[in-house]
Amino acid sequence: MSSIDLNSDLGESFGQWRMGDDATMLGIVTSANVACGFHAGDPAGISRTLQAAAEHGVTVGAHVSYPDLVGFGRRYMDIASDELYADVIYQIGALQGLARAAGTQVRYVKPHGALYNTIAHDRRQAEAVIEAIRDVDASLLLMTLAGTPLVGWAREAGLNTAAEAFADRAYNADGSLVSRREAGAVLHDADRCAERMDRLVHEGVIECIDGHDIALHADSICVHGDSPGAVALAEAVRARLTRSGVTLKAFAGTPS
Amino acid sequence: MSSIDLNSDLGESFGQWRMGDDATMLGIVTSANVACGFHAGDPAGISRTLQAAAEHGVTVGAHVSYPDLVGFGRRYMDIASDELYADVIYQIGALQGLARAAGTQVRYVKPHGALYNTIAHDRRQAEAVIEAIRDVDASLLLMTLAGTPLVGWAREAGLNTAAEAFADRAYNADGSLVSRREAGAVLHDADRCAERMDRLVHEGVIECIDGHDIALHADSICVHGDSPGAVALAEAVRARLTRSGVTLKAFAGTPS
Amino acid sequence: MSSIDLNSDLGESFGQWRMGDDATMLGIVTSANVACGFHAGDPAGISRTLQAAAEHGVTVGAHVSYPDLVGFGRRYMDIASDELYADVIYQIGALQGLARAAGTQVRYVKPHGALYNTIAHDRRQAEAVIEAIRDVDASLLLMTLAGTPLVGWAREAGLNTAAEAFADRAYNADGSLVSRREAGAVLHDADRCAERMDRLVHEGVIECIDGHDIALHADSICVHGDSPGAVALAEAVRARLTRSGVTLKAFAGTPS
Amino acid sequence: MSSIDLNSDLGESFGQWRMGDDATMLGIVTSANVACGFHAGDPAGISRTLQAAAEHGVTVGAHVSYPDLVGFGRRYMDIASDELYADVIYQIGALQGLARAAGTQVRYVKPHGALYNTIAHDRRQAEAVIEAIRDVDASLLLMTLAGTPLVGWAREAGLNTAAEAFADRAYNADGSLVSRREAGAVLHDADRCAERMDRLVHEGVIECIDGHDIALHADSICVHGDSPGAVALAEAVRARLTRSGVTLKAFAGTPS
Repeated sequence: MSSIDLNSDLGESFGQWRMGDDATMLGIVTSANVACGFHAGDPAGISRTLQAAAEHGVTVGAHVSYPDLVGFGRRYMDIASDELYADVIYQIGALQGLARAAGTQVRYVKPHGALYNTIAHDRRQAEAVIEAIRDVDASLLLMTLAGTPLVGWAREAGLNTAAEAFADRAYNADGSLVSRREAGAVLHDADRCAERMDRLVHEGVIECIDGHDIALHADSICVHGDSPGAVALAEAVRARLTRSGVTLKAFAGTPS
Repeated sequence: MSSIDLNSDLGESFGQWRMGDDATMLGIVTSANVACGFHAGDPAGISRTLQAAAEHGVTVGAHVSYPDLVGFGRRYMDIASDELYADVIYQIGALQGLARAAGTQVRYVKPHGALYNTIAHDRRQAEAVIEAIRDVDASLLLMTLAGTPLVGWAREAGLNTAAEAFADRAYNADGSLVSRREAGAVLHDADRCAERMDRLVHEGVIECIDGHDIALHADSICVHGDSPGAVALAEAVRARLTRSGVTLKAFAGTPS
Repeated sequence: MSSIDLNSDLGESFGQWRMGDDATMLGIVTSANVACGFHAGDPAGISRTLQAAAEHGVTVGAHVSYPDLVGFGRRYMDIASDELYADVIYQIGALQGLARAAGTQVRYVKPHGALYNTIAHDRRQAEAVIEAIRDVDASLLLMTLAGTPLVGWAREAGLNTAAEAFADRAYNADGSLVSRREAGAVLHDADRCAERMDRLVHEGVIECIDGHDIALHADSICVHGDSPGAVALAEAVRARLTRSGVTLKAFAGTPS
Repeated sequence: MSSIDLNSDLGESFGQWRMGDDATMLGIVTSANVACGFHAGDPAGISRTLQAAAEHGVTVGAHVSYPDLVGFGRRYMDIASDELYADVIYQIGALQGLARAAGTQVRYVKPHGALYNTIAHDRRQAEAVIEAIRDVDASLLLMTLAGTPLVGWAREAGLNTAAEAFADRAYNADGSLVSRREAGAVLHDADRCAERMDRLVHEGVIECIDGHDIALHADSICVHGDSPGAVALAEAVRARLTRSGVTLKAFAGTPS
């Protein structure tokens, strides 16, 4: 019987500003990528999300970012390796502390936004992130976009990795994501997204933007938490997979 | 034979801005209160200080603060308990992560600046700090000003505490520090400071500002790292104590 | 015929985080208290709010704050006078620049949150704010809570002031606001709020929390922009006043 | 008789952290590029630098930056045009406000660090900066590196520009600066730097790194304020130029 993980970006409120519906999403997903304060998340808000994740038995990952609150970590930065290395450890450590106090623990790391995109192909920055994870806790898994060079670099360094697919994103023929700047990059029909993910799990393929199928392996499915309709999409994907006999479970193991 | 700890505030540079001479001070003190990013300290700079502390065998504490970089944590803030609780855990966790990567560990917590002064007597904020320490790592000691209500509150909550005296500060008759706003609050003669600390260790007394001796118990002596003459003061205190047979050793145990 | 100003706090989004419905509120109010980046508001977002204010002919004020983004400026800070003085000028100047580029101008200053409450009675901090306004542009009006000592201090210093009443807040018998920590502090019935404001304009009285009327003079009515139901309240107040023949116009003059 | 401007980056302290010796440099230079809070400079510190500039009759420019305090504005950011546009106006406006309160005014704009380098050749970001200056105050001059495409773009848009040369930097044969990553990029002999600047003013040439002379036109000479030896270099350049009959005067006019 097949199984897969369902992950979402959570803990992205900041102070008085709300983003996403963490309480509801934590009833749907199996892994929570929790903001660490550099692109989003203040300590008290992160703490509330971690407590809710612990109550729901959802596995926690560190959603580490460039230091860019006003840009929500979505702007590429030409950051020195020693700075990026220390920034990543700082964020993981802070989340580990808050997780421990909330009765849970950090099991994986998922870089966010521009950092996620950059390290998929930029070896210098990728190695700073890889070394940071290895030095702070070598048992942490690194969640990556399926099919990028990052996967190989991380494994060479001895890290375990997990590949994720995006439920609501279109794919190019080479397995990369269609850029958000292009038409059709984001899919809005929840049922169609759910159907695509069901095929991905059962057949290991996804229909790419030019209409033919490509092979794609994924350990986790990402349902974004900050878009309108996020909850509906997550529910549709979960329901569709459950119906076809797929077990939803955290790729990085359960929290306790 | 007597022994005492010698502590200093370190890791207080930020980005391109330098503060203090960490490398030299780490050759003199036995405990380093390392900034955690809220009043000072960027991750890369903190990391360098922790590596140097590990090399020198100096014990590391988390110098936690209100979130106030521009004010260097010296401005009182009326912060909610859940915010302060989470801010303290976030900082301790971040420093624990960087310490682990640097091959050392955090052994104690010393609140900084306005937070240090506030929780000495403000029970609500004190309890937020105490609960934070207990929830993230109950084995961490809390360093406090000798003779304040905070000591009792922390012990009631099951925390171990250590009291510190200030080498270059004048004392009131009730054991409190003379406010920096008053004349004579800060002593500038390194030899006199050293002599006072020597009496403190051997006789358990300090001469207060009106000229008579008061009893004072201290587990650690603080030599400030950010004043001109900091290194000279620290060296004078260390030399004087060593000469009179006092062993200098970290109150919270050695790092490894 | 009577006239009064209707003001609201706007421009309080930050980066990816949205707060309030500025576009709709700018069709209702006559004065916009625009965030300046210290408690809320990033430059690009502030700029969009200013452009919309200019299009609607709504007068702009600087909603200056303590430097406390994560606390939304709602936490008291014991800030030095020279720091507060420069912080206020910095914020007013920044908003003046963005206003100029948007084809409008800043006509008044309304301190925000904890700063607003503090300077109503704390003379030292009040004087730092007053001097800042006077030194950067003495023609700016200061918007204050009606009946506080601040009004006198500002006038002594030569500043013009305007007093505001709060449409959805309960009043104590001495004209102060009932604290948000007490039951009944915030009124939720839009029609009742509108009726209270209508009496205030026509009769110069408001029913305080113990049931009797007190005299209250107001140049402006504040309708909060960040609560649910903000638009409905603002519309109800505007409709009620318009129906009873009150002209709504900006107390600080029109933008152009 | 020849004349030239001497400029330096000032106001780059932040809170408790000191950088540079503004008081001394303001007795030597004719133009001060003052930090605006995004890479350095807190409002109270900026205010003190502006007051000192006003006392010395030194002309003030806005040293605008990417929002990156921890990176001191030295890290390239892929920032959206509307964000960069508003960030630049915000900074200029804030400095204008503080300058007005200090009895002086902002006369020019000099982008800082990575922004300075980027807009020398990146048209999209350059145009955001140019439009920002034009929209907030079209009389402000833009200070640029001599010989870059930026000069043409700014002039097309109707801005006045001034070109600067660097007293302590080596030049490539094409007039660009030798990268700091290469040996010999920074010159450390103050007398040699002064001599090079004297030839530049009198002959319009500078010896480039391969030993032959290239033509270079400069309206201003930059002497960095944040390096050790900054004061000595500035004094050497000033003395050498004065001795050879060059008048030192601000390219953007005097402050009053």
